[in-house]
Amino acid sequence: MSEACPITVAKGDGIGPEIMDASLHILKEAGARLDIEEIQIGEQVYSSGHTSGIEPSAWDSLRRTKVFYKAPITTPQGGGFKSLNVTIRKTLGLYANIRPCASYHPFVETKHPVMDVVIVRENEEDTYAGIEHQQTREVTQCLKLISRPGCEKICRFGFEYAKANGRSKVSCFTKDNIMKLTDGLFHKVFDEVAADYPDIENEHWIVDIGAAKLADTPEKFDVIIMPNLYGDILSDVAAQITGSVGLAGSANIGDGFAMFEAIHGSAPRRAGQNLANPTGLLHGGIQMLVYLGQQDIAERIHNAWLKTIEDGIHTYDIYTDSHSKEKVGTKEFAEAVVARL
Amino acid sequence: MSEACPITVAKGDGIGPEIMDASLHILKEAGARLDIEEIQIGEQVYSSGHTSGIEPSAWDSLRRTKVFYKAPITTPQGGGFKSLNVTIRKTLGLYANIRPCASYHPFVETKHPVMDVVIVRENEEDTYAGIEHQQTREVTQCLKLISRPGCEKICRFGFEYAKANGRSKVSCFTKDNIMKLTDGLFHKVFDEVAADYPDIENEHWIVDIGAAKLADTPEKFDVIIMPNLYGDILSDVAAQITGSVGLAGSANIGDGFAMFEAIHGSAPRRAGQNLANPTGLLHGGIQMLVYLGQQDIAERIHNAWLKTIEDGIHTYDIYTDSHSKEKVGTKEFAEAVVARL
Ligand SMILES: CC(C)[C@H](C(=O)O)[C@@H](O)C(=O)O
Ligand SMILES: CC(C)[C@H](C(=O)O)[C@@H](O)C(=O)O
Repeated sequence: MSEACPITVAKGDGIGPEIMDASLHILKEAGARLDIEEIQIGEQVYSSGHTSGIEPSAWDSLRRTKVFYKAPITTPQGGGFKSLNVTIRKTLGLYANIRPCASYHPFVETKHPVMDVVIVRENEEDTYAGIEHQQTREVTQCLKLISRPGCEKICRFGFEYAKANGRSKVSCFTKDNIMKLTDGLFHKVFDEVAADYPDIENEHWIVDIGAAKLADTPEKFDVIIMPNLYGDILSDVAAQITGSVGLAGSANIGDGFAMFEAIHGSAPRRAGQNLANPTGLLHGGIQMLVYLGQQDIAERIHNAWLKTIEDGIHTYDIYTDSHSKEKVGTKEFAEAVVARL
Repeated sequence: MSEACPITVAKGDGIGPEIMDASLHILKEAGARLDIEEIQIGEQVYSSGHTSGIEPSAWDSLRRTKVFYKAPITTPQGGGFKSLNVTIRKTLGLYANIRPCASYHPFVETKHPVMDVVIVRENEEDTYAGIEHQQTREVTQCLKLISRPGCEKICRFGFEYAKANGRSKVSCFTKDNIMKLTDGLFHKVFDEVAADYPDIENEHWIVDIGAAKLADTPEKFDVIIMPNLYGDILSDVAAQITGSVGLAGSANIGDGFAMFEAIHGSAPRRAGQNLANPTGLLHGGIQMLVYLGQQDIAERIHNAWLKTIEDGIHTYDIYTDSHSKEKVGTKEFAEAVVARL
């Protein structure tokens, strides 16, 4: 048995602590070999005067472990507060955001029973560069940035992911009929990289009609590579139409660093009630185990989770007329998964 | 009987001429009082050296009639060609793009039988301002513009539209947790304008989860106001999930000028085969008749169209297991509508 892998964990805000405790419980019981350092981020840190939401010592932990398992946090509203998600992605150079969205028909109710899409989202550039200014009292501007190295890294990553995971088609969504330089560059680099993978089918869609097809007939898509903002919007769409945005996990990958999370937010109104579905964060954890080379444990957890869902044991957010036998809380759901490991 | 209203018509490219002929035939037979000037735009004009896709004399017609009924056109690929749609919207100051997306269950197959959403899309600003540059060989940028007057006009328009059409809720989608200045301004102005309409419910969604809910449970939305790019993407999503992107029409409204069109493109591969569904453009025409004060004719056409669809007379794009009795071409569909006027 190999050594434990050091990781940094943050329990976050809102429903964060509940779903992180549930996920870690499952990971440990499944035999994941993890050496955990816990850090504080989010509300408490913001309110103690760090507008970034993270303290310097937390960065030390991240630099040491290089792997971050992160629950959702709440960023205070209004100016002056930066999104910590974005800060971490940029500081650690996490350029690829991988968001698998699959249906679990008939165990999770969905209008799209045949769906297994992986959104590969560029994670540093676009309007997320954070460059905004107010030109006059009445005019504001935001700079969208698209660079060739940024496009090359994400497109290469997407095709390598497809190859490694036996996926047969990679699509690209941009709005290059309007943004001819920026989205045009993304599309051009996609075509260049695609040429290196002759065995994988490739196609490009203008994002408007691509999004429409994804929302209506997701079964026609496999891997989709997109600039940051489209990937943000359309990964929520793809996750939601599988049955719940609470099902999808997310891997943020860079050179040497990685962060794993749920794609949903901290849902403050659900907090502290033992209600939340830990699945999104658990799926992030499964992606983390694969990244750490603990593929066997990852599979054991996935199968136990699937068995739980198949047995009709569901949290409140999973709607099923025919298959929910028992509606349970966060803790009970985690115990049910553990019992099926 | 009032006088005929002067309008400018362009038959466009691809399937454009077929669907425009079909739509105009229906409008005329229904008794629409229109005095038509035809102009050339699109492919022919681009290839004769006008990179804008429109000739100076066509602008004269538009300035005279102030109302434009426009079929889709094909913009040549690559740099150097501007989107004519965007040029016209900006030149004529068409700041509001109204895109009703409704289901016609059970006559048109859809996974969303209860759906009646109107997307009110800001139509001049955002990354559509067309300001892009290449900073270095490797770095490109695009400027997103959001101004207070722009936000005020579209939000006011959206609430006035809701009021005039007996709509009870207006939602706003932005990404103001990331773009705090630009999307933040849009959200702020939305809230200010909403305060003037206490009888209309209002709400704001971050665009990622808003889009997800729209794609999954569109029945929860009524009128949705959005910045330009989100409106582009999500109006295609909304139209498609009613059953076909070919069903939705679009009104582009400014102070004194207006343009009416389908929301879909010129579909070159379907051209010249008497295949295309003229419904999107016809719905644009119905919006035009309402704008011109010919409400009675607009209703007559809508009812005849509905009767046609209810009778199971469908073009190729409308998928129905149970309700398509006859699959017809563009011309036959138009004749079927005319027969039901
Ligand atoms: C919370 C927010 C900054 C974040 C994003 O926009 O990337 C989230 O929506 C996500 O998708 O991870
Ligand atoms: C053709 C294109 C320029 C246009 C847009 O992006 O606005 C179209 O997609 C639309 O929605 O009318």
